[in-house]
Amino acid sequence: MKYFSYFILLLTIFNSYLFSQIQPEKIDLIIKSSLLDNKGYKLLEELCQIGPRLSGSQNSLKAIKWAEAKMKSIGFDTVWLQPVYVPHWERGNIEKAFVSNSNKYMNKELKITALGGSISTPKDGIKGKIIEVKSLEEVSKLKNANGKIIFYNRPFDNSLVNTMEAYGKAVDQRTSGAIEAAKVGAIGVLVRSIQSNYDNNPHTGTLRYEDNVNKIPAAAISVIDADFLSKAIKEDENLELTMQLDCKKFDDTLSYNVIGEIKGSNYPNEIIAVGGHFDSWDKGCGAHDDGGGCMQAIEAVELFKRLNIKPKRTLRTVLFINEENGLKGAIEYSKISQSSSQKHLAAIELDRGVHSPRGFYVSTDSTTFNKIQNWLPYLNKSKIDWIKFGGSGADVGQIKNAKALFGYVPDDQRYMDYHHSDNDTFDKVNPREFELGTASIAILIYLLSENGI
Amino acid sequence: MKYFSYFILLLTIFNSYLFSQIQPEKIDLIIKSSLLDNKGYKLLEELCQIGPRLSGSQNSLKAIKWAEAKMKSIGFDTVWLQPVYVPHWERGNIEKAFVSNSNKYMNKELKITALGGSISTPKDGIKGKIIEVKSLEEVSKLKNANGKIIFYNRPFDNSLVNTMEAYGKAVDQRTSGAIEAAKVGAIGVLVRSIQSNYDNNPHTGTLRYEDNVNKIPAAAISVIDADFLSKAIKEDENLELTMQLDCKKFDDTLSYNVIGEIKGSNYPNEIIAVGGHFDSWDKGCGAHDDGGGCMQAIEAVELFKRLNIKPKRTLRTVLFINEENGLKGAIEYSKISQSSSQKHLAAIELDRGVHSPRGFYVSTDSTTFNKIQNWLPYLNKSKIDWIKFGGSGADVGQIKNAKALFGYVPDDQRYMDYHHSDNDTFDKVNPREFELGTASIAILIYLLSENGI
Repeated sequence: MKYFSYFILLLTIFNSYLFSQIQPEKIDLIIKSSLLDNKGYKLLEELCQIGPRLSGSQNSLKAIKWAEAKMKSIGFDTVWLQPVYVPHWERGNIEKAFVSNSNKYMNKELKITALGGSISTPKDGIKGKIIEVKSLEEVSKLKNANGKIIFYNRPFDNSLVNTMEAYGKAVDQRTSGAIEAAKVGAIGVLVRSIQSNYDNNPHTGTLRYEDNVNKIPAAAISVIDADFLSKAIKEDENLELTMQLDCKKFDDTLSYNVIGEIKGSNYPNEIIAVGGHFDSWDKGCGAHDDGGGCMQAIEAVELFKRLNIKPKRTLRTVLFINEENGLKGAIEYSKISQSSSQKHLAAIELDRGVHSPRGFYVSTDSTTFNKIQNWLPYLNKSKIDWIKFGGSGADVGQIKNAKALFGYVPDDQRYMDYHHSDNDTFDKVNPREFELGTASIAILIYLLSENGI
Repeated sequence: MKYFSYFILLLTIFNSYLFSQIQPEKIDLIIKSSLLDNKGYKLLEELCQIGPRLSGSQNSLKAIKWAEAKMKSIGFDTVWLQPVYVPHWERGNIEKAFVSNSNKYMNKELKITALGGSISTPKDGIKGKIIEVKSLEEVSKLKNANGKIIFYNRPFDNSLVNTMEAYGKAVDQRTSGAIEAAKVGAIGVLVRSIQSNYDNNPHTGTLRYEDNVNKIPAAAISVIDADFLSKAIKEDENLELTMQLDCKKFDDTLSYNVIGEIKGSNYPNEIIAVGGHFDSWDKGCGAHDDGGGCMQAIEAVELFKRLNIKPKRTLRTVLFINEENGLKGAIEYSKISQSSSQKHLAAIELDRGVHSPRGFYVSTDSTTFNKIQNWLPYLNKSKIDWIKFGGSGADVGQIKNAKALFGYVPDDQRYMDYHHSDNDTFDKVNPREFELGTASIAILIYLLSENGI
C-alpha cells in the first residue's frame, strides 16, 4: 500500500510535469487564428471548384495534384504521393426510370441515380413489375421474383437522435440489396434514397456484388418518388417500370494518397496522423463528405507553421484515396504504419461532415483514455463537450498499431441531408463551424504532440 | 456526524423517491414524437407565411390571432391574450445612401437599413462628409463633428468562439451610437452591420435616443459596403454621402402576449412557464429570432397532450410581445407572476436561434442547481451536453420570484448570419435541429413537472 502511495505521488508529479508543457495561450491562438483567417475554409472553396473526386476519375487526379502543390506551398516540411491502384467506375450519361405500363401514370418519370458500382442495364433498359419490400429478409422469403424489380423502401428512421445510427440501420438495403434480389430472380433493384431530409435528389453510395450471384443493376430512387411509387403500385398492380443505366467499370487505375508532414523536434519518429478521405462520390463536390475533413486536416497541421509552434512529435496529414468504394488508400497506408521505423502514436479521422464540434471518440486502453479525458478543459475552449470510447473511422481504423485512434464528432443533424448527393456543395458549409472544427483538431494534436500518451 | 449520516441517508431515499416519478420511456417518446411528427416545425412554416411581426404592426396582430387560434385547436386547456401597449415604429419605403460628392465614386449606392426606432431624414436626405470611428469613446473625444456623418466601423469579432459575446462587444455602436454622435454635432450615423458572415444584407436592431440629446437618423450599413466606404474615404477625403430614411413613429398601440396552459393534476398552482418573444424585426420572417423559439415553446407543451402525459404541475406557454424594442410584454407578464396566487416554479426562455441543442443556463440557488444537474443523463438523450449557471433571457428575466430561470442554449455558430436581417427565413431552419430542441425543452419541463424543485 505504501509503494502504491509513492507510485501515486510520482504519477502526480509526472502528470504536472506533462501539463507544464501546455501553454494555454497557444490554444487560444490556435482558435483565434482558425476563426479569423478561414484558411482551411478557403482551401475547401478552391477544392470544390475542381468538382467531385470519385476514385479513378480524372477529377480525382487533378485534385490530388492540387493538394500536393498546395501542401508544399503552405509550409509542410515534406509532401509526397503514395501510389495505390483503385477501382474505376463511371456512372455514364443515362440514368432514367419511367412508368412504362399503367393506365394512370404512363410515362411518369422517377428521379433515380445509379448506386456506385452498379452494372449497366441493356441499352433499352430493363422493364418489369415492382415488388416493394422493407428488408433483405423479406426478399429472401420471396418464392421467386423472376423478371421483377425489387423496390427496397424501408425509410431512414428520423425518430433516432443519432443520424449515423439511422444511416446504419437503413444502409444494408443499398449495400446488399442487389445480391439478395438477384438470388430470387429479380432483374433490377431500386433503393429508397438514404437521407434525413425530404427532397427529389437521390443519394448514391456503394453496393456489393457477390462472385457467385448474378449481377443486376441497382439505383437509388428519391424519397419523394419512392413515396409516389409505393402509392402507385398499390393503385395499379399491373404497373411496370423501365429503368436505364449506362454505368461502366474499368480496370483498376493508379491513384495516390497525399501525405504531408512537419517533422517533430524532440521525437521525430513518433507520428500523429490526421486525415480524411480525399475521394468523394460523383455528386455535388463532396464538400462535407469529405473534402471538408481533408481541408481541416491540412489546416490543423499548417496552423503549427502559421503560429510558429514547433511540434515535439511529427505531425502528418494523410488524404486517403478510395474510402467510398474500396478503402484501397487506407489499406496501402497501413503498410507504412506496420513496416516503418516510425511509430504511429495517434491517428485522428475526420469523416462525419463539417458542423460544430461536439466530441471525440477514442479507441485506446483505459489508462490512456483517462489521461486524454484530463485534456477536456483545453478542448472545451473550442466547444468539444465530451470524449468517449468509440470508433475512429474506416481509414484510420486500418492503422493497427497506434496507441490511440480518434474519431472527430461534429454535430450530425444536417449531415444526412447532404451525404452522397447533389446537395453536398460548398455553400452548405459554414465557415465558423468549419474553423471551430479545425481548431478542435489542432488543439488535440497540440496536446498529443506536447504530452505524448 | 451521526446526524449528518442520517441526513444523507434521508436525502438519498428522498432523491430516489423523486426519481421514481420519472419514466424514461416517456422521455424516449418525447424525442421520437418530436423528431417524427415535426409539428412545431410545420407551425413555424405557417407562421413565416404571415411575414415579419414587428411590435405594433398589422402583421404582428395577425400572427397573434393565428397563434391564439392554433393553440386552442391543438389542445391547450386555456388560451388567452394579455393586453399591453407597445411601441409602433415603421421603417417606411425609402432607405438609401449614395456617394454625392467624389471624383471617383460619384453616385455609388451603398446598402443600408434604418436602425429600429430611427427618426427619418428630411425628404431630400442628409448630406455630409464621413468620420470613421471604432468606438463611442473615440466619438466623445472628437472636438466637433458638425455637419458630418459618423461611421462606426468596429467589426464583429469573429475570432471569438461565442457569437453572443462577439455581438455583445459590437452592439454598443448600434444602441448608443446616435446619442454620442449627436453630442458632437453629427447629423447622422452609419453603423457597420453586426453579423458573423460577409454579405450585402445589413442587419437592423434597436437604437436608443436620450431626451436631452438631439435625435439624428441612424442606419446599419452592410459589411461589404462598410469596407468599401472605409477604403473610399481614405482615397478621397472630400467624399460626401447622402442618406435618406423615411421612418415614422406612431403612438403606442394595443398588442398582446399570447398565453396558453395545460392545468397540472397535483399542483395546479405551481407554474412552469416556457416562452420566447413573438415580435420580430421587420426583416425576413423572424424564423430564428424568435418565431422558432415560440413554436418550440408551443410544441413542447402540446407534446404532453399528444403523448397523453398528464403533468403534475401547470405548464404554460408564453409568447411575449415586444422584446426587440421595449420589453413591454415581459414587463406586463411579470405583473401576473407577482400578483397572482399562482407561483412560478420555473421559467424557460428560448431566444438564441434554432440550432442543435447544447445546454441550459440556469439562474437559481446552488442546492436547486445541484438537483437539476442530476437530470443531465435524461437531458443528454436529446443532446444536451451541459447545465451551467447563467442568464435566462430578457423576457423570462422579468419574472422575479421563480425558483429557477432557464435559458436554452442551442449551437450558436450560424445564428449571427441571420439575426435581424433578411436572411432570417424559414429555409434556414433545419427540422431535426428544431425538433431536437423542442424535445430538450419538453424533457426539462417533464422533469420539472414530475419532480418539482
